Amino acid sequence: MAIPIALVTVTTLAAMILTQASDPELTTDYYVNSTTDKTTVTSDYFTSEVFRGGITIPEGATVFTKRITSEPDSLPSLTGLGVSVAMIKYLPGGTNPHHTHPRGTEVLYVMEGKLTVGLVDTTNKLFTQVLSVGDVFVFPKGLVHYQINLGSKPVVAYISFSSSNPGTVSLPATLFGSGIPDKVHKVAFKVDGHVVDKLQEPFNM
Amino acid sequence: MAIPIALVTVTTLAAMILTQASDPELTTDYYVNSTTDKTTVTSDYFTSEVFRGGITIPEGATVFTKRITSEPDSLPSLTGLGVSVAMIKYLPGGTNPHHTHPRGTEVLYVMEGKLTVGLVDTTNKLFTQVLSVGDVFVFPKGLVHYQINLGSKPVVAYISFSSSNPGTVSLPATLFGSGIPDKVHKVAFKVDGHVVDKLQEPFNM
Amino acid sequence: MAIPIALVTVTTLAAMILTQASDPELTTDYYVNSTTDKTTVTSDYFTSEVFRGGITIPEGATVFTKRITSEPDSLPSLTGLGVSVAMIKYLPGGTNPHHTHPRGTEVLYVMEGKLTVGLVDTTNKLFTQVLSVGDVFVFPKGLVHYQINLGSKPVVAYISFSSSNPGTVSLPATLFGSGIPDKVHKVAFKVDGHVVDKLQEPFNM
Amino acid sequence: MAIPIALVTVTTLAAMILTQASDPELTTDYYVNSTTDKTTVTSDYFTSEVFRGGITIPEGATVFTKRITSEPDSLPSLTGLGVSVAMIKYLPGGTNPHHTHPRGTEVLYVMEGKLTVGLVDTTNKLFTQVLSVGDVFVFPKGLVHYQINLGSKPVVAYISFSSSNPGTVSLPATLFGSGIPDKVHKVAFKVDGHVVDKLQEPFNM
Amino acid sequence: MAIPIALVTVTTLAAMILTQASDPELTTDYYVNSTTDKTTVTSDYFTSEVFRGGITIPEGATVFTKRITSEPDSLPSLTGLGVSVAMIKYLPGGTNPHHTHPRGTEVLYVMEGKLTVGLVDTTNKLFTQVLSVGDVFVFPKGLVHYQINLGSKPVVAYISFSSSNPGTVSLPATLFGSGIPDKVHKVAFKVDGHVVDKLQEPFNM
Amino acid sequence: MAIPIALVTVTTLAAMILTQASDPELTTDYYVNSTTDKTTVTSDYFTSEVFRGGITIPEGATVFTKRITSEPDSLPSLTGLGVSVAMIKYLPGGTNPHHTHPRGTEVLYVMEGKLTVGLVDTTNKLFTQVLSVGDVFVFPKGLVHYQINLGSKPVVAYISFSSSNPGTVSLPATLFGSGIPDKVHKVAFKVDGHVVDKLQEPFNM
Repeated sequence: MAIPIALVTVTTLAAMILTQASDPELTTDYYVNSTTDKTTVTSDYFTSEVFRGGITIPEGATVFTKRITSEPDSLPSLTGLGVSVAMIKYLPGGTNPHHTHPRGTEVLYVMEGKLTVGLVDTTNKLFTQVLSVGDVFVFPKGLVHYQINLGSKPVVAYISFSSSNPGTVSLPATLFGSGIPDKVHKVAFKVDGHVVDKLQEPFNM
Repeated sequence: MAIPIALVTVTTLAAMILTQASDPELTTDYYVNSTTDKTTVTSDYFTSEVFRGGITIPEGATVFTKRITSEPDSLPSLTGLGVSVAMIKYLPGGTNPHHTHPRGTEVLYVMEGKLTVGLVDTTNKLFTQVLSVGDVFVFPKGLVHYQINLGSKPVVAYISFSSSNPGTVSLPATLFGSGIPDKVHKVAFKVDGHVVDKLQEPFNM
Repeated sequence: MAIPIALVTVTTLAAMILTQASDPELTTDYYVNSTTDKTTVTSDYFTSEVFRGGITIPEGATVFTKRITSEPDSLPSLTGLGVSVAMIKYLPGGTNPHHTHPRGTEVLYVMEGKLTVGLVDTTNKLFTQVLSVGDVFVFPKGLVHYQINLGSKPVVAYISFSSSNPGTVSLPATLFGSGIPDKVHKVAFKVDGHVVDKLQEPFNM
Repeated sequence: MAIPIALVTVTTLAAMILTQASDPELTTDYYVNSTTDKTTVTSDYFTSEVFRGGITIPEGATVFTKRITSEPDSLPSLTGLGVSVAMIKYLPGGTNPHHTHPRGTEVLYVMEGKLTVGLVDTTNKLFTQVLSVGDVFVFPKGLVHYQINLGSKPVVAYISFSSSNPGTVSLPATLFGSGIPDKVHKVAFKVDGHVVDKLQEPFNM
Repeated sequence: MAIPIALVTVTTLAAMILTQASDPELTTDYYVNSTTDKTTVTSDYFTSEVFRGGITIPEGATVFTKRITSEPDSLPSLTGLGVSVAMIKYLPGGTNPHHTHPRGTEVLYVMEGKLTVGLVDTTNKLFTQVLSVGDVFVFPKGLVHYQINLGSKPVVAYISFSSSNPGTVSLPATLFGSGIPDKVHKVAFKVDGHVVDKLQEPFNM
Repeated sequence: MAIPIALVTVTTLAAMILTQASDPELTTDYYVNSTTDKTTVTSDYFTSEVFRGGITIPEGATVFTKRITSEPDSLPSLTGLGVSVAMIKYLPGGTNPHHTHPRGTEVLYVMEGKLTVGLVDTTNKLFTQVLSVGDVFVFPKGLVHYQINLGSKPVVAYISFSSSNPGTVSLPATLFGSGIPDKVHKVAFKVDGHVVDKLQEPFNM
């Protein structure tokens, strides 16, 4: 019976890969995953059509984001190359709420409309700006920031990241939609249970 | 007489360069700032007594942190070495509120007492643990986490960071003490102005 | 009176240090040059309006590029953050000739028109693609690539780089406009002096 | 029939390796090895109880060290996070003999007792210090250092490293317990065979 | 019988992972691939005899290069160590035509003969030098450079790279031997089809 | 008259900054120090003639090394490029005693003669090899190694490092010539004072 031996081999392999784990600076022209024959790679491997046609905001939402990262179901040719991109559309009143990117700096470019942005550094100093079409704004790595469309027309922005997969910590959901006990919120934010309930409400529906 | 002013300018320049210093792979044994003669360096340059005697929590507070980083007024010999440390004491009920370190992973070790910790990943999954004396917990780079002393005795923890100056984004103060407009909070957290007022109150005193 | 001269020297020194600044992992929230008081930094420090109004192609040219990098006269807040951006416009027939970026990967996004791109890896394998509006293409670090507008309408592309200052080696000018001796060209390209003359001609005008 | 199952396993493995691909700079929140389903990760994955109860020194020894690193049998959640920790206990007279960490800086904190430390830079300059409880000392990456308990009570120290697996080159064992030929020792240390024998003796038992 | 096929798959997988291996900060003393038992490694694993006997230039050629890199069929112990080497011999008139290394700086040392070298920076400034035996020249990462033997005797050079696999973009072949359409060449180099034909000719034989 | 003093101060400052320069990813083509006008750089800036004429071993010595590093008085164009080189000559019986490079991997190439090398990993496993002309050997970062000429003719080796300034910890001098107290040696090496005296003797002359 063949399975046990094959499994043993696979398990050993996995353990060894763990021991050797490593990455960033590539030592090949580009990354190809281990089940793909490199000679079969075509220009499609370097292409994404995900942003074609722009962003359609789902019903009920006021903001929507599309990302192109190094993840397997996105654009794996970005693996190890230290850059990725995203596109985001905001209806009037739409906001990309307070968030951080734990693994990357963001450079935002306004393609359409007028966008209000905010950035807070670790001294709690707030930097805000109203960006017009063509403007670029830098959100340094790991710092809290937000964008809001305070105008009457849709806004579209194109975003460059300094990581092939920067991650996003959306603060309202992280703080109030993850199940952190009320007790912690009350002490941390110095508010009563009623306020905590209100903050958790949007995630309990 | 011109020299003093010129010297002041030069010294300021040196201090500023030091302040901006970044964390690369060193090409010297250790960093010495540009106004110090390297041959005068003694073992004190590698020593900090900041944690001697432990932590005294200031009156009115329930938590206090001391840090040893590469900053000029802390332990500059850490510059470029990719590691720094901190010590923190929590009275009963004391909390180190939800925060992130934009430039580093944290490894916490419990020296005294029982500490409840929480970590939220970018999928909003919460990991909580009650740590006893001797336990170690990892908070990966840039992710939201908190610690709270739910016991009846003081807790002391010792912390290792993967950066010589990891920075701290304390979320309550960053969000509600930095002057982000109410409008943004209302849309982002989906709450009314009354709740926002309550969240800002602790910072308006 | 000595002060002014000393001050000039100090200011020059500071500017030069900035010019040489490299791209490590920051240990501060963001970089501020040594002659700027950090407390005076405003949101303008993170903003560039260079792309406002898009690209106007100079008379006689068919392609024009604008860059936003960490260089002192561009957007220094990008220093140490590992990302920068550019915008490029191509008239019909316009080409961004064969080039490499010695210090970064490029991700190109087509904002307007149809753009033909080409990428050659180190095995001399060519990858070409015709990109439509909304398409994204990756040019991995250091590899030769080009873009050409083979359509009848202008094309505009927005570009993200994985370095705050990736540099550009434009191959026609580097090879045939830098004064490399004919002898070298003849042996390297296995052509006669007549062909070399033709290649150098555009740079001798 | 075994093949299909084996193939499924292998394919899954490949996909997981892709997903986890990366390291020093992570591109995921945290590392999970290729045979673990990420959704099954709990807070225990980030916790180590190895230091609970402190250090018990084995009979006959005068020093003992426990490490928490990214190795598979230690705390793999540290993988790619650039930090690890250790705890060490020294009986009176106990020494952590001359050693280097080839892949990391060490920051030592004295938890109990009085510890004498020494550091030698590449100019052969010795830095020594007697550390009291609460003191911190930095041993920069790759430099030779030692610790010795010259007091009459046990000493306990807690150590932070700038690598998830810094490695240790213990110099007495490396030099005199690895089988380097006597001839080399005699020329290198300018001593006779009798001295070399004495140095090798502790490792020949 | 299923095992053989499963094993073949696993072995192929391992080889592919090795092929894609990148160049990070190691967390082990040295890299060993996933199908090798680390305890079986001998000093041969760290040794290459590829340069023994020097370089024999193949008939018809005037230049020949041998490389020792981290690739599986070269010297895999270099994996993750950020350095590799090469040896190159030039007959009189022989040239190493205009090229770049996308992933590394080159330091060239002249072992025999007199070698003329050229380097062009991104401002198209040419630096040329005639190197004698014993001379060293630096070609910074990603910049175009060439070497030519303008003397009457063979030249031998030894080369150090700052990457375990720096890659080489040989510009004549990349530009004119990869199938880039004539149309692109004509616009980019501002030459007619006749010149393009001449440039492509050496690669069409 | 104040200017000269101010200028001296500024120049010193610049030199010190240069001395402390670290080895990050460059964001310029190459590094130029802050007191040099970049436009005045010539090809000499990239050239070193230090190895011309090979190595002359000083009288009384049996080994001598020349290095080309990024240090101000060596080849500063190497700054930030992550590579440097050295040349070493060994008379018969000459040894490059047990040492480590705290900041780099070494690749050694034998130019003349037969060289015996040894490498010890962190498990105290010894790898030895007798290298002939043309052979290459890898000493991974931070590990202890040595070379000895056991033949009857001089040996010359050329060395590549993975850092622009890797540093050298020569173990005999570091251990026994730096003033580490006898007490520490006795406990660490488990030898008596007589053996320690013998080990220190060569450095007391």
